[in-house]
Amino acid sequence: MPDAPLFDRLCVIGIGLIGSSILRAARARGLVRTLVASDASAAVRARVGELGIADEVRDSPAEAVEGADAVILCVPSGAFGAVAEAIGPHLKPGAVVSDTGSVKASVVAQMAPFLPANVHFIPAHPVAGTEYSGPDAGFAELFDNRWCIFTPAADVDAGMLARLKAFWERLGSRVETMTPEHHDLVLAITSHVPHLIAYNIVGTADDLEAVTQSEVIKFSAGGFRDFTRIAASDPTMWRDIFLNNRKAVLEVLGRFSEDLAYLQRAIRWGEGDKLFELFTRTRAVRRSIIDIGQETAEPDFGRHHGKPPA
Amino acid sequence: MPDAPLFDRLCVIGIGLIGSSILRAARARGLVRTLVASDASAAVRARVGELGIADEVRDSPAEAVEGADAVILCVPSGAFGAVAEAIGPHLKPGAVVSDTGSVKASVVAQMAPFLPANVHFIPAHPVAGTEYSGPDAGFAELFDNRWCIFTPAADVDAGMLARLKAFWERLGSRVETMTPEHHDLVLAITSHVPHLIAYNIVGTADDLEAVTQSEVIKFSAGGFRDFTRIAASDPTMWRDIFLNNRKAVLEVLGRFSEDLAYLQRAIRWGEGDKLFELFTRTRAVRRSIIDIGQETAEPDFGRHHGKPPA
Repeated sequence: MPDAPLFDRLCVIGIGLIGSSILRAARARGLVRTLVASDASAAVRARVGELGIADEVRDSPAEAVEGADAVILCVPSGAFGAVAEAIGPHLKPGAVVSDTGSVKASVVAQMAPFLPANVHFIPAHPVAGTEYSGPDAGFAELFDNRWCIFTPAADVDAGMLARLKAFWERLGSRVETMTPEHHDLVLAITSHVPHLIAYNIVGTADDLEAVTQSEVIKFSAGGFRDFTRIAASDPTMWRDIFLNNRKAVLEVLGRFSEDLAYLQRAIRWGEGDKLFELFTRTRAVRRSIIDIGQETAEPDFGRHHGKPPA
Repeated sequence: MPDAPLFDRLCVIGIGLIGSSILRAARARGLVRTLVASDASAAVRARVGELGIADEVRDSPAEAVEGADAVILCVPSGAFGAVAEAIGPHLKPGAVVSDTGSVKASVVAQMAPFLPANVHFIPAHPVAGTEYSGPDAGFAELFDNRWCIFTPAADVDAGMLARLKAFWERLGSRVETMTPEHHDLVLAITSHVPHLIAYNIVGTADDLEAVTQSEVIKFSAGGFRDFTRIAASDPTMWRDIFLNNRKAVLEVLGRFSEDLAYLQRAIRWGEGDKLFELFTRTRAVRRSIIDIGQETAEPDFGRHHGKPPA
């Protein structure tokens, strides 16, 4: 019976882009019998009620996890300790407790002390998202063809690991397993530092006295606007990511700055061959990403060309 | 007769993404009577013949400009001097000579010495493009709703300026005028430095020993893949841009690095408020770009979510 629900009662805590997408996809694909939601914000809880994307909405995480055989925390990276402390005594024995945090060593360090020995803790990170946030931003297809990275302890229960893997696969994702520390380094280069430099270039442009704000905005199609997308991501989430993945982010940032100084020097001294060599190599990287289906080959991301969008 | 052709014979030299888009749009919109094309590459000239996007294809720029009342050079920023020298003695008196170079002070310095006094020189830069290059990559809608920046001398002929402005407007663009030096600073922040840091982060990722190439590619949806688009742009064009806009690029790059050091220090010392302040401010910049129709509001640039693209 491959299409039977995988969990009886799934509790999702933190109903933003990711949490609300899990609720929508889990219902659309029949993965659980009952969906329970909770969020620290009363406004968000009310909105989840209006959207009708959960069967039950609870005011506190402690109430929400009661009787759940699966609990997924989708909160900012700085909030895991407090939520784990609140739910720890209320978790059902044998439940699986997971999360969707973007930094894994920190999630483990924050949550593990508060989780009873009789639950299965399997940290997870779906590498998916958009620049929008909140319960209205989610959609059931968000995880399709994306990767979800698990960072379980070596002694994790194999049966529960397989069940959670099946859950993410039926959400549309492919699952890979690695250590929390390696995850944090991989994400520092593929996500965290890219976000930081996007935020930074948008800030630099905003601050330049010699170029007006209006000019930056009008002429942004020359490349700048690409960076504004990820620089429009949720500020709380991203502040917490940098504070909680400090070591790996600083390490990769050091490499980025070193490489940038090399290019800066090549420009200053007119060493065109060094620039040309790099600019040729980087084309191949994009080609590979397109080839494995993680990016569109359409020009300009498939953005509309022609008449301005209505 | 507002729809009459604006030029009798338009010669486009350099038939890549931009040059071939001008040919396609000029024909589709009836802007000239005869289209003449030339390119330094025999293979490109042959392809232009196959595509049939010009009425005549000439081997040398000198032949191509004979009798043309409008000449537009669409060559890499390092090649303007040589082409201007080649065409100078063959230009028709009274013709307008323009270009589409991404760096304006350098174009003026390279071309002006070779142009006879009896032609009208109006440097121009359409702020439009995709990451693809070559004559097959162009399309007639490329300039719709984009800006074209003119950087003419103060004593330019007003009638010819108006005619070239009408040409670009009928290509779909809006025209703005500024000095070459100001243009180069505006483009350094809105296009050149964004490209440099995109090339740089892709290079850094490619070089990291602790993270495999395969991991960078698989998990690129976390943000990295956004940067690979502009880092897949034409290497020759971009090498020339950096070598020819050195002063403005180094100035903006200095600001970028200073701002990045501030963020790096905030991360090291756990100063979340400084990060949060910037991350909030940058959201507003994107909102403005969307509001004036220079960017899509669709999540993730409107990239396809769901099943992998066929």
